[in-house]
Amino acid sequence: MPDRLMTGAALLLAAWPGGAQQRRPPERLENLTGKTLMLFTPHPDDDTFCCAGTLAQLARKQNKIYIVIYTNDDKGSYDPEMTSERLARIRMHEEEEACRIVGIPKENILWLQFHDGMLEYANSRDLVEQCTGLIRKYRPDVVLGPDPGGEYVRWHKTDHRMAAMNTIDAIRAAEWHLYFPNQRLHDHLEPWKVPMEFFYYAGKDANYFVNIDNEIELKLNASAAHVSQFDPSIRHYRADWDPKDLERVKATFRSRSKKDGHYVEGFRSARGFNPQ
Amino acid sequence: MPDRLMTGAALLLAAWPGGAQQRRPPERLENLTGKTLMLFTPHPDDDTFCCAGTLAQLARKQNKIYIVIYTNDDKGSYDPEMTSERLARIRMHEEEEACRIVGIPKENILWLQFHDGMLEYANSRDLVEQCTGLIRKYRPDVVLGPDPGGEYVRWHKTDHRMAAMNTIDAIRAAEWHLYFPNQRLHDHLEPWKVPMEFFYYAGKDANYFVNIDNEIELKLNASAAHVSQFDPSIRHYRADWDPKDLERVKATFRSRSKKDGHYVEGFRSARGFNPQ
Amino acid sequence: MPDRLMTGAALLLAAWPGGAQQRRPPERLENLTGKTLMLFTPHPDDDTFCCAGTLAQLARKQNKIYIVIYTNDDKGSYDPEMTSERLARIRMHEEEEACRIVGIPKENILWLQFHDGMLEYANSRDLVEQCTGLIRKYRPDVVLGPDPGGEYVRWHKTDHRMAAMNTIDAIRAAEWHLYFPNQRLHDHLEPWKVPMEFFYYAGKDANYFVNIDNEIELKLNASAAHVSQFDPSIRHYRADWDPKDLERVKATFRSRSKKDGHYVEGFRSARGFNPQ
Amino acid sequence: MPDRLMTGAALLLAAWPGGAQQRRPPERLENLTGKTLMLFTPHPDDDTFCCAGTLAQLARKQNKIYIVIYTNDDKGSYDPEMTSERLARIRMHEEEEACRIVGIPKENILWLQFHDGMLEYANSRDLVEQCTGLIRKYRPDVVLGPDPGGEYVRWHKTDHRMAAMNTIDAIRAAEWHLYFPNQRLHDHLEPWKVPMEFFYYAGKDANYFVNIDNEIELKLNASAAHVSQFDPSIRHYRADWDPKDLERVKATFRSRSKKDGHYVEGFRSARGFNPQ
Amino acid sequence: MPDRLMTGAALLLAAWPGGAQQRRPPERLENLTGKTLMLFTPHPDDDTFCCAGTLAQLARKQNKIYIVIYTNDDKGSYDPEMTSERLARIRMHEEEEACRIVGIPKENILWLQFHDGMLEYANSRDLVEQCTGLIRKYRPDVVLGPDPGGEYVRWHKTDHRMAAMNTIDAIRAAEWHLYFPNQRLHDHLEPWKVPMEFFYYAGKDANYFVNIDNEIELKLNASAAHVSQFDPSIRHYRADWDPKDLERVKATFRSRSKKDGHYVEGFRSARGFNPQ
Amino acid sequence: MPDRLMTGAALLLAAWPGGAQQRRPPERLENLTGKTLMLFTPHPDDDTFCCAGTLAQLARKQNKIYIVIYTNDDKGSYDPEMTSERLARIRMHEEEEACRIVGIPKENILWLQFHDGMLEYANSRDLVEQCTGLIRKYRPDVVLGPDPGGEYVRWHKTDHRMAAMNTIDAIRAAEWHLYFPNQRLHDHLEPWKVPMEFFYYAGKDANYFVNIDNEIELKLNASAAHVSQFDPSIRHYRADWDPKDLERVKATFRSRSKKDGHYVEGFRSARGFNPQ
Repeated sequence: MPDRLMTGAALLLAAWPGGAQQRRPPERLENLTGKTLMLFTPHPDDDTFCCAGTLAQLARKQNKIYIVIYTNDDKGSYDPEMTSERLARIRMHEEEEACRIVGIPKENILWLQFHDGMLEYANSRDLVEQCTGLIRKYRPDVVLGPDPGGEYVRWHKTDHRMAAMNTIDAIRAAEWHLYFPNQRLHDHLEPWKVPMEFFYYAGKDANYFVNIDNEIELKLNASAAHVSQFDPSIRHYRADWDPKDLERVKATFRSRSKKDGHYVEGFRSARGFNPQ
Repeated sequence: MPDRLMTGAALLLAAWPGGAQQRRPPERLENLTGKTLMLFTPHPDDDTFCCAGTLAQLARKQNKIYIVIYTNDDKGSYDPEMTSERLARIRMHEEEEACRIVGIPKENILWLQFHDGMLEYANSRDLVEQCTGLIRKYRPDVVLGPDPGGEYVRWHKTDHRMAAMNTIDAIRAAEWHLYFPNQRLHDHLEPWKVPMEFFYYAGKDANYFVNIDNEIELKLNASAAHVSQFDPSIRHYRADWDPKDLERVKATFRSRSKKDGHYVEGFRSARGFNPQ
Repeated sequence: MPDRLMTGAALLLAAWPGGAQQRRPPERLENLTGKTLMLFTPHPDDDTFCCAGTLAQLARKQNKIYIVIYTNDDKGSYDPEMTSERLARIRMHEEEEACRIVGIPKENILWLQFHDGMLEYANSRDLVEQCTGLIRKYRPDVVLGPDPGGEYVRWHKTDHRMAAMNTIDAIRAAEWHLYFPNQRLHDHLEPWKVPMEFFYYAGKDANYFVNIDNEIELKLNASAAHVSQFDPSIRHYRADWDPKDLERVKATFRSRSKKDGHYVEGFRSARGFNPQ
Repeated sequence: MPDRLMTGAALLLAAWPGGAQQRRPPERLENLTGKTLMLFTPHPDDDTFCCAGTLAQLARKQNKIYIVIYTNDDKGSYDPEMTSERLARIRMHEEEEACRIVGIPKENILWLQFHDGMLEYANSRDLVEQCTGLIRKYRPDVVLGPDPGGEYVRWHKTDHRMAAMNTIDAIRAAEWHLYFPNQRLHDHLEPWKVPMEFFYYAGKDANYFVNIDNEIELKLNASAAHVSQFDPSIRHYRADWDPKDLERVKATFRSRSKKDGHYVEGFRSARGFNPQ
Repeated sequence: MPDRLMTGAALLLAAWPGGAQQRRPPERLENLTGKTLMLFTPHPDDDTFCCAGTLAQLARKQNKIYIVIYTNDDKGSYDPEMTSERLARIRMHEEEEACRIVGIPKENILWLQFHDGMLEYANSRDLVEQCTGLIRKYRPDVVLGPDPGGEYVRWHKTDHRMAAMNTIDAIRAAEWHLYFPNQRLHDHLEPWKVPMEFFYYAGKDANYFVNIDNEIELKLNASAAHVSQFDPSIRHYRADWDPKDLERVKATFRSRSKKDGHYVEGFRSARGFNPQ
Repeated sequence: MPDRLMTGAALLLAAWPGGAQQRRPPERLENLTGKTLMLFTPHPDDDTFCCAGTLAQLARKQNKIYIVIYTNDDKGSYDPEMTSERLARIRMHEEEEACRIVGIPKENILWLQFHDGMLEYANSRDLVEQCTGLIRKYRPDVVLGPDPGGEYVRWHKTDHRMAAMNTIDAIRAAEWHLYFPNQRLHDHLEPWKVPMEFFYYAGKDANYFVNIDNEIELKLNASAAHVSQFDPSIRHYRADWDPKDLERVKATFRSRSKKDGHYVEGFRSARGFNPQ
């Protein structure tokens, strides 16, 4: 009786006090090889800031990684001369560079094209349908997304809330052929059940940590590719770093970011129903 | 100074650190007799899976129980030949059978007729109005609904989120005659304050447990009435159970579902304001 | 490298386990002088019930305080003869009186004019835009709002949920000139980054307490100005208190509301990103 | 090849220049006997003002007439002391009295309970579903509604626009069992094709006139039952007429309202597709 | 029995074939003096292109004219280097210059701040409320707006459709104190019945023409102030005109724009209900 | 001064009585060769029923024709055993067969995948964006769509209204690069101005007729491919025709569908602004 098919039984267990044991993934995320991963990110940089070390390991191990980006990040500048059209262009190129450093080709970046900060006001039914179609098309072995947990309700940028919710809702819908049946009929997309899910921005709910001691410099470089998002470029745009500024930012991170003496990236791991 | 009338005072206490003591219900839920209960469920089976044992006790004790079902569950099948129209029909009959086993006549099942997975996209103002009208009509002594708590923000099926929120919002609106005043004018429905609320799917927030040692077999039978939701029927629909499959499912539950040596159903109990 | 400008670095830290240290405010809220504060409240009384003691201290110290009120509270009466139009008028005068007692002139009360209980159904994009404009206009040193945390997901009045979310979303949008750029163009409103935020209704997440031992009687008087919200006026409207009723309500609060022997008001304090 | 079944052929004809001949109804509307009619009206009085003479003839001839009223008309008073709650009550009683005069029992008045002027902002999908259910329940031989034509786009009260559109959309949906299939499943409502439709408020598009010379005084009396909508009651509410005011209003109508020497009520008649 | 108060009678007449005679305005629009006029325009130029000649006459005669502009026109450029932020700034200055030429001070321009082409997707209830508040505040003797008639359903820019509908809906709502009653309570705005309405963009429905033979050059100059909307500036932005281009555009208009040998501006005039 | 660039001048002319002369297309639609045409149709059959004869001529002349289909037509059957999932499959195959007969390969059919009758409730902003992207991708020389005119406001199937409006709104938006600028940034789609537009279902507004005397039998065959939409298949589904039924349907059309002795298809032709 394979776990993924016994829905009624799973729900029944979920309804029971202590009944819905959350199964651990069978192997370490970072050890996967030859798989397909799909990461949903609210903006072009949450993927880098949260997961660059893990992604770099996975890219090296011949996994195919798709980055689905909900918004174009066209609002995040204090430069009074900046316009949204120009910032969107800048952010696209910065993301492509960050992905290149991590090992993901720019053809694998899928832009959903929402405006920064406006994802919350998207039509949620249509957004679920769109992402369901992507999951059914790429059939990922692992989906990564922002955690729809405690942080979710407080998060200070609305896009994170919507991205977190929408991603798990699309995962759920992708599994059943009667959701959005026109995708099967007209696009020949078959249903797909995502076997593993990892959630970043999990805060104190993180239950899964990937050691990135070997990728820390790569991650800082990839993060630094988002130069427009750091001082001083965020105040008066410049496309490059003053080496002193860059080194100071990196030093801050190197000094503040260790957990138990190691650099890590934290996730919440869950399978099937997604308990508290 | 009866508790239910001093709204200002209650709010003022709620605003004070430690001020809003959550009162326990005056008597045990499962000991009620001759009362009216109203259970709101996202799908036709959450009521069975979460509350069948408790409901069976209450049905035996001459309580009147109404089951309000938000959706028709017309998406939950892996059978490639299944259609939504057919599945809705199957799910309706399975729910009626599960209720029959629990002791609830099918006349007491109220279908709100949303499509499975689409409740999230309903017009929330209208949905609150509709459920407010039902509460004012049936005037229940107890309302049961899914818990709008920690699980809510993570729950993997959007209908649960909306059902949890909508039910507490309708409870609140039903109390005040100036909400949806046309219901009083045109339908002769008077306001109604729900005295007790119990929330299922409470996860680790459950604070109230009902012993169902005597109802465990009845509950497993009621749950098994939802045959289309279990393997193998969920993969290739059949209306009945292979006895071996059924026994294996039941055995799984009997072995996994005890808390402190007893079968229980867990709830969060709350009155009035509904604190953390 | 001032904290408020290094957005990319802040996000990057937020993404790291344990990385996003929440800075404490540099001085005590209640010690501020000559500043501008802006409090967003779902209804005309949440400000009084949650913050009157703190606000009274701040008003005495020459701070300018604006109260932004989302709804007009026109549903909260059990009096069968009450109408919404009349109740809105009563509630407006009660709020003005409560503010007068606290030390806030009625010119500083800004009514957003939503109907009670209907804020949830407002257009959230427009509501964020409206409050963003207010923040850019008044440029507050501190914003107070309902806490969008654990209580939020359970809160029994929908207006609280929407007010909590909307306030933090407006704080975020106000900072960036590319959000709602027409406000700069047509209204000459410049972006504004709110330096400090305090959240009330924080429940067990409160991490900041203001001693109001000296303001307790003033607070009870301000609260009592909302006479229509207390028994018996809430059942059969009367504009004044029977002295015995008033004294009994006050006594209840005096006896129940102490924390460690003191009267306090509790808040959650946060800066910038708003972690769990 | 019965007309009502050859949908493809009808559409094909409609697509052809001059091809979609609009069939005239087989017999005069006012000569029907023993039939069921359903009139959809934006407010409680459009039915009276537009159709009272025709309805009175039909009521006399043993036809069953249902009046479906979209809104409660709770805004239409210049009296500064009037409230919406009170006005809704007044308008309900006036409509019941007008219907009584026409010959329609108050049990046949179905209130959809929208607020005056707010129908435009209703959820149109849900509104179509609701009215589809009513048509399937009462299975009318004739539906009357406001004309969704030239007047529609200019009409000065939004409720008229929405009521006109919604009524024809519900007529269309009622015919096909795959629209809102839960109504068949859970409510046992079968699809229903409305055989005849007449549209009032047709302006210069009216193509069908009913002589009401014998009902003119009855119609003026029924119209006068809406006393709150006429001067002076509309400025300062009074429940009755000064006889002189009443006679003056009636005289105005008697003198202005003839067409070719007769009192008539004008409609646009259409069947099936509803051409220009 | 003043016309404006007998609502019931007016509706009753409207329901009668030929009954709702459309009254002509008591005096010529262009002869008004010392009045308040309010013109609602979808974009900053429809007012100039449609009404500059008439407005110039009215401005000269000491009428107070307010221009309410729904959108900021931030999309209308073929220049590939143009951004929306910059175009909005350009369009604002062009409109201010056009108004200056017509004789309207820039303080009288009220920007509603919607983005070009996005008015259709605004929340229509909120938009009516906003414009209702403006009408109640300025209490205009005349409102001018785009015609919600035949052109409306075909018009090629969605903003025109929404602006036409919204303006008449706001006129209607402004009259009744029970629409948006919080405006009276919190903003001290009293209801206001607009006495006269003129609709521009009336196409072949125009029934009222204003001779602008004396204002034709002024109108061409005001129109030319919108230089970014004309070739060649629309293809490659420049802030000024090549004199030859300007003369050619003016010549085109002088030669094509006469009706019966005169330059005129056409309107549809209507009062109260707004018939076909 | 090319017509298509002088937007300001065009609008200014449009504002003038008689000023906006509607230019006729430079050559006959049916004589085009080697061009790209794009037809937007509400359902899979409106294209066949309205335009099959014209399309067949164009297909023969080496024009590339794309058919964009808004809905999947999954509601139109009286067969009580029919389900939406099955009907959608049937309708897709029927449309592919009809297109094959006309000369359009099935790769050129683009399904937007809305459910039948539900287009009205789609998010209109997103729908315009989606169709704008298609126009920018295929860069058609001619767009055909349902006429948003007089028929539009009365049409008995809501999808026609929405399809008519949405198509002209997408044509307008496609022209300006500042509409949906992410399409240029992320999808490399450049703006595109559609040079010619023809509207079908124009009713009495048709001003352009294409002789299809030579294509009448082909058109009847293509129409007959939609067998599920004709009696008797619409009542009890069968995939083929009884030859006698087919001949009777064809005979009806042959006899009723001539205009001035010829078979024709009627359109309204318009360019640029789209006047009454």
